[in-house]
Amino acid sequence: MAGSTYGTIFKITTWGESHGKGLGVVVDGCPAGIPLSEEYIQSFLDRRKPGQSKFTTPRKESDTVEILSGVFEGKTTGTPISMMVRNENQKSKDYSEIASYYRPGHADFTFDAKYGFRDYRGGGRSSGRETIGRVAGGAVAMALLSALGIQIQAYTKSIGPITCDMTRFDLNEIKHNSVCMPDAYAADKAQIYLNACMDNQNSAGGIIECIIDGVPAGIGDPVFEKLDANLAKAIFSIGAVKGFEIGDGFAAAASTGLDNNDAFCTDADGKITKATNHAGGILGGISDGTQIVFRAAIKPTPSIAAQQQTVKRDGTPITISIQGRHDPIIVPRAVVVVEAMAAITIADMMLLNLGAKQDTILDFYK
Amino acid sequence: MAGSTYGTIFKITTWGESHGKGLGVVVDGCPAGIPLSEEYIQSFLDRRKPGQSKFTTPRKESDTVEILSGVFEGKTTGTPISMMVRNENQKSKDYSEIASYYRPGHADFTFDAKYGFRDYRGGGRSSGRETIGRVAGGAVAMALLSALGIQIQAYTKSIGPITCDMTRFDLNEIKHNSVCMPDAYAADKAQIYLNACMDNQNSAGGIIECIIDGVPAGIGDPVFEKLDANLAKAIFSIGAVKGFEIGDGFAAAASTGLDNNDAFCTDADGKITKATNHAGGILGGISDGTQIVFRAAIKPTPSIAAQQQTVKRDGTPITISIQGRHDPIIVPRAVVVVEAMAAITIADMMLLNLGAKQDTILDFYK
Amino acid sequence: MAGSTYGTIFKITTWGESHGKGLGVVVDGCPAGIPLSEEYIQSFLDRRKPGQSKFTTPRKESDTVEILSGVFEGKTTGTPISMMVRNENQKSKDYSEIASYYRPGHADFTFDAKYGFRDYRGGGRSSGRETIGRVAGGAVAMALLSALGIQIQAYTKSIGPITCDMTRFDLNEIKHNSVCMPDAYAADKAQIYLNACMDNQNSAGGIIECIIDGVPAGIGDPVFEKLDANLAKAIFSIGAVKGFEIGDGFAAAASTGLDNNDAFCTDADGKITKATNHAGGILGGISDGTQIVFRAAIKPTPSIAAQQQTVKRDGTPITISIQGRHDPIIVPRAVVVVEAMAAITIADMMLLNLGAKQDTILDFYK
Amino acid sequence: MAGSTYGTIFKITTWGESHGKGLGVVVDGCPAGIPLSEEYIQSFLDRRKPGQSKFTTPRKESDTVEILSGVFEGKTTGTPISMMVRNENQKSKDYSEIASYYRPGHADFTFDAKYGFRDYRGGGRSSGRETIGRVAGGAVAMALLSALGIQIQAYTKSIGPITCDMTRFDLNEIKHNSVCMPDAYAADKAQIYLNACMDNQNSAGGIIECIIDGVPAGIGDPVFEKLDANLAKAIFSIGAVKGFEIGDGFAAAASTGLDNNDAFCTDADGKITKATNHAGGILGGISDGTQIVFRAAIKPTPSIAAQQQTVKRDGTPITISIQGRHDPIIVPRAVVVVEAMAAITIADMMLLNLGAKQDTILDFYK
Repeated sequence: MAGSTYGTIFKITTWGESHGKGLGVVVDGCPAGIPLSEEYIQSFLDRRKPGQSKFTTPRKESDTVEILSGVFEGKTTGTPISMMVRNENQKSKDYSEIASYYRPGHADFTFDAKYGFRDYRGGGRSSGRETIGRVAGGAVAMALLSALGIQIQAYTKSIGPITCDMTRFDLNEIKHNSVCMPDAYAADKAQIYLNACMDNQNSAGGIIECIIDGVPAGIGDPVFEKLDANLAKAIFSIGAVKGFEIGDGFAAAASTGLDNNDAFCTDADGKITKATNHAGGILGGISDGTQIVFRAAIKPTPSIAAQQQTVKRDGTPITISIQGRHDPIIVPRAVVVVEAMAAITIADMMLLNLGAKQDTILDFYK
Repeated sequence: MAGSTYGTIFKITTWGESHGKGLGVVVDGCPAGIPLSEEYIQSFLDRRKPGQSKFTTPRKESDTVEILSGVFEGKTTGTPISMMVRNENQKSKDYSEIASYYRPGHADFTFDAKYGFRDYRGGGRSSGRETIGRVAGGAVAMALLSALGIQIQAYTKSIGPITCDMTRFDLNEIKHNSVCMPDAYAADKAQIYLNACMDNQNSAGGIIECIIDGVPAGIGDPVFEKLDANLAKAIFSIGAVKGFEIGDGFAAAASTGLDNNDAFCTDADGKITKATNHAGGILGGISDGTQIVFRAAIKPTPSIAAQQQTVKRDGTPITISIQGRHDPIIVPRAVVVVEAMAAITIADMMLLNLGAKQDTILDFYK
Repeated sequence: MAGSTYGTIFKITTWGESHGKGLGVVVDGCPAGIPLSEEYIQSFLDRRKPGQSKFTTPRKESDTVEILSGVFEGKTTGTPISMMVRNENQKSKDYSEIASYYRPGHADFTFDAKYGFRDYRGGGRSSGRETIGRVAGGAVAMALLSALGIQIQAYTKSIGPITCDMTRFDLNEIKHNSVCMPDAYAADKAQIYLNACMDNQNSAGGIIECIIDGVPAGIGDPVFEKLDANLAKAIFSIGAVKGFEIGDGFAAAASTGLDNNDAFCTDADGKITKATNHAGGILGGISDGTQIVFRAAIKPTPSIAAQQQTVKRDGTPITISIQGRHDPIIVPRAVVVVEAMAAITIADMMLLNLGAKQDTILDFYK
Repeated sequence: MAGSTYGTIFKITTWGESHGKGLGVVVDGCPAGIPLSEEYIQSFLDRRKPGQSKFTTPRKESDTVEILSGVFEGKTTGTPISMMVRNENQKSKDYSEIASYYRPGHADFTFDAKYGFRDYRGGGRSSGRETIGRVAGGAVAMALLSALGIQIQAYTKSIGPITCDMTRFDLNEIKHNSVCMPDAYAADKAQIYLNACMDNQNSAGGIIECIIDGVPAGIGDPVFEKLDANLAKAIFSIGAVKGFEIGDGFAAAASTGLDNNDAFCTDADGKITKATNHAGGILGGISDGTQIVFRAAIKPTPSIAAQQQTVKRDGTPITISIQGRHDPIIVPRAVVVVEAMAAITIADMMLLNLGAKQDTILDFYK
């Protein structure tokens, strides 16, 4: 099936494999008139680029983006924005062994089951490099959202058993440690934990939290196109995500109506808002004007150097040890990917919302 | 936006409000030749029907389904299957008070924000009755999946703080208690907990778990149309869902690669399978042929008789107490809704998978 | 496949067969706040209803519409509008003969080829009655377009060899003759022609022209979603349509650039417009603010009483004569169907256009 | 809106402008295992390349395609195939004059109306170069269709007033004249006509006919997704198309049921077929297994050197003469574009048809 396109009006189509010529994205349906430059896109890509700390793969890629279309005199034209990053560091080596067996936790087996064969030189479309297109596309969405006064900020909430203490929450801290945590103390402990993982040829997972400010009330639709349902799909479409929750999430299941309901009230300006935010900013699938908060669970990197049992394509048992350039944790690099997918989803649903009421349509065309 | 249609090839479009003339669904893209009857559809609707225990709303509705099109001589014809349930129990009463304020935890405020006004006689499209169309559509999907040897079974995993002990897991038990739990002991404790909630004019939430057997390897697509991403959206589109996880889910975030990876092995027939199933049956967005396992967190029913603070449409504070026919917990009635949305998703992606390989296309058209 | 849904934001899903319980439509994505009543919808359905002249089938159907959802206190709520018409005149008869052979010009053979069997009691989904859902859905679109000052008017341009003389063009005349022609003289000649067709147990085709006034410049998209491409699909999806052209259409192919180009100029108000309209109101797939003009060619009714050669399901030759209630021409009844499909297409593309420019999005959300 | 993607399962997304860095396409949903090479794609692109005769623009472009992803070891992998052509001949010049007025017959005015500004260096997305992505994508579809035994052949049916005499029809002749006509005599006359057009600083239009052999019965869907409706949209989405007809097309409107109906019969192998083909191979929107025949009307090239009246952006009248590298006719170069759009449409609908019957689904998954 055609599964490389996401969005209804604001739409991205990504392409490329880890060991092919490059990767890219076509952003279609972007409104005309948004200032956009390669430098702006690059600043997002640089956040997911490898080699930024000892906890990311040492594979060297500059991941330099080229805008190929859709921007004229520094502004989007309303036509498709094509962007590309060339792969630089495709090591030429013997892949015959890797081709012969199925790595645990990877999509090797399921690709073979689906397509009959696979590009065995790496993860192919299941590689983390697939997210380059998402991040470039998300940067375009972010340019629109910024103009609308919307901020999206994700960060590492936990790594393995180490969780940030939200009483020490400091947004500025996120950029100052290599694990993207908003709590310097937790960040230190997480790095100790990761060092131990690496020593054991093992890997770690974690939780990413994302907060979105400035989304007006009324975004999202009541039934299948709920804003939270679309965020769930967007985030779950990122490789390695195993869980998604909004507001109090799974904890809400153990709560009661009295505790979980958020009382409506008015703010200092007399605007209707909520006294608490157990709901995470969405009611009935539609944004309520308060902060949107969600979390994603990321599994540990499946590529580990420790010995593992698996089978060859013909079912023969084999013991393997995955060598090479692998991140002991992908959580810090996935933070910007989560932001990107959230941005695309919010931008798309804000465009879809423009026709909700006859009054505003009459205004537009008057 | 048009948010009442779900699916790409196997597609449902639902309609109807809690206090309108009725509710229904059009199932389009269903293959021709599937035996289908009103009795079969009704057996699914009866599982979500109100009035089956003291823990569900006493609103009396027979929810009798009528098939209006798409079935001829007992089989689907390949053309749209329209099904309808008439509302019977629309109490004529004075809604002026309800219309004037925003109920906490409900979509009253967000509907007004989006559409400028709302059908204030009840939940409108945000009512639990909206799921009638999902369940009827899901029954059609289930008819196809059953012919393919696929079973989908959901059940209540927890209610409030009471969780099933999976060592006592007994599928038959699900039908024998009013909370749909596969553990008789937990079911008893849950009912005591719910009685206490009701005494306190309060409500409860819970977790639904769903297991799917028989899905062949290869279903789902690598990037945005991952099978788990689509299940996430499908389940999150059900009102009151606040979290979704697959396999080990959030627990995987605290695990390590060595513990979380599932070793491939062969079964007694020499077929490739996995020694464990932390992944929940999906790798890289594509089914791996093992059991698919996911969980959904359901928030407590927001309609409670206890006093709550909220505001009127103009922002004036008001204290309310929601009277009427409300479920103290919706989890047991949502079990069949979860199965329905899973069935539609799996059926759709199995149809989308038919064209994955040139070889099988050549076979089909030879 | 799921082929019963049309539109992207303003979306209709139709269902029902000629000899089933009824037919209907779900309109999803309609903006909130549009005044709508059953009487308004009915006025459109009455124009396609059978039995209005000797040139339409005498099958008696009142085709009374019921609005089942999506309208509250006389206005659309933004949620799906479900509408239904019950079939009344399903003659109970012996269909075994009809079931056994393939009628020339009908979809009997292709349905069997596709689905393996068919509802042989009539045309099934290929019956002209399928257009009931289109017309009801089109009426909703028309309600929105009327509020925007847009008028859509179709009429019979020709019947068999008889063509209207546009120098005698009179819109009021359309309602005064049974063939929907805007030229009384041609209408008389057409009726004589049709009487001769009926005497010969034969049938006729014709051309429908549609003019659309008031569409602002800027509607439609440059590449695959051109406004004319979408009109072409919309009109071609009506059964029996064999040709579609816009502006000068096929005649443009024989013209030259100098003759076919429309010079831009300004009107009395200084607004930019065109001195001529060979283009039919669309340039590069986008409306230019002038009148949109298109034509559709409709084939002669395939059901004729004259003897025809065909084959049974097993290939045996057979001579048949189709008895029963059939229109000798469907063109006059198809006029309102053409208007409906045009209205849905224009409404949908006007909603899609709302997000074309950043400036207007900032205005909307300021 | 996002209007640069076409198709449901087999899907192309095109990008690029005439004077940008390049143009390209992402083909998504292509089955795995189809042999594909740059040489094969190039052979299609070479047929639309400029500079092949005196009747095409002398703009020099090699239009060399690069496959960037989705092909491994010479076969499609099932993942997106990204292809790009770099623009080479972007003359650096002063565009200030062109930017100031609206060319008749072009999309300059409608782009400004929609997006507020435009890439004034050329046609932008409305340039004929936009079809590069369509042709590259169509070549991939053709690779699949060829394996299925399907041939698609388009040719010039008429140029201005010169029409091929089908009694002289010779497919081989198409490649031997510069106007792609299957009739050498008509080709000679057409070239004389075109020379006269060029002498007069004028341009010509024409009609393209397309015949498709080998499509099995059963492709297409009964209502909105009729095969002919999708072909109509596909062809009408090509710039400059003003009319589309299938089978007898507009002539059918003047015929009678008795003459227009195609009798079913059996062929030498006992297979059910039709004695005539007025329908053009499609009945009720579904292919009937006979040859599919359609025609498209192409308007004269709007860029002409002769003087024309138009207005500046502010409405001031101006007389212009369009200089530069323009085709006096685009019909011969559009032939391969018509084939490409037909191929994509047929391929997509053949994939969508795989799930029409339960029986074949059970076979696939058994």
